[in-house]
Amino acid sequence: MGLFTRDIKTLDDLFVHTLQDIYYAENQITKALPKMIDKATSPELKNGFKKHLAETENQIKRLEQVFQMHGHSPKAVTCPAINGIIEEAKDVLDAGLVASAQAVEHYEITRYGTLIAWARRLGRDDCAGVLQQNLDEEKAADQTLTALAERQVNQHAA
Amino acid sequence: MGLFTRDIKTLDDLFVHTLQDIYYAENQITKALPKMIDKATSPELKNGFKKHLAETENQIKRLEQVFQMHGHSPKAVTCPAINGIIEEAKDVLDAGLVASAQAVEHYEITRYGTLIAWARRLGRDDCAGVLQQNLDEEKAADQTLTALAERQVNQHAA
Repeated sequence: MGLFTRDIKTLDDLFVHTLQDIYYAENQITKALPKMIDKATSPELKNGFKKHLAETENQIKRLEQVFQMHGHSPKAVTCPAINGIIEEAKDVLDAGLVASAQAVEHYEITRYGTLIAWARRLGRDDCAGVLQQNLDEEKAADQTLTALAERQVNQHAA
Repeated sequence: MGLFTRDIKTLDDLFVHTLQDIYYAENQITKALPKMIDKATSPELKNGFKKHLAETENQIKRLEQVFQMHGHSPKAVTCPAINGIIEEAKDVLDAGLVASAQAVEHYEITRYGTLIAWARRLGRDDCAGVLQQNLDEEKAADQTLTALAERQVNQHAA
């Protein structure tokens, strides 16, 4: 809302300012939704977002109508709340991707560990040596993901 | 691993079968990673996944080398574990998208509720009526998202 950034003296000022705030929010949402449609996996969710994008475009027209009815030109004021919500949505997705990638890494780490032990038991140190290179890479990848996740958490705490 | 689907009598059989299992897993990962690169928001995460895709392609070559060293042709056996992990990754992303979309809906619901109340106080029932249409749509969108999330949870419990 950014209420303290300008003079708001009456309920009318507050009404118009909040109208400008939701007008900004709806416009930001029309920019964010195509990305969400793109990232959604389930066809049902994809269609749900597509339908809501069409609705949001129509809602913006209604807001413009309300501005006009109330004798004002449509204008948007930056709304830090919606910016924060959209920013957090990106983080949620990235955190989900990191968690999923780490589940994969850990599956691979356990498999390679087993394969290396069995290769040695079978007298195949040559095979164990090659498999060890894969294991080392998977462990490094896992550590990179952990570091990335921790940096993001610290960045938000800062 | 699907260990009970074929005859495994010796440690050697187990070693080869597990090699085929991780060979399948690494191949599935090379198919999943481009989608994860596409969905990642942070450039650092995107680059991390790109680097790991190149590594994974190289790891597949190493596995083929191990097959050859051990006197076998490279072959993949379906690994339900990695399929499950990759499938779950999709759900994690969709769940994140639904949660983020609902945060947006709830922000809008509170704003429209306030705007409608203020419009009425200002004697602008005409404006309140138009804003009410937006509020109704946002509430319906929120309910659709809740129903979708619940259906997905039930689907997995079934």
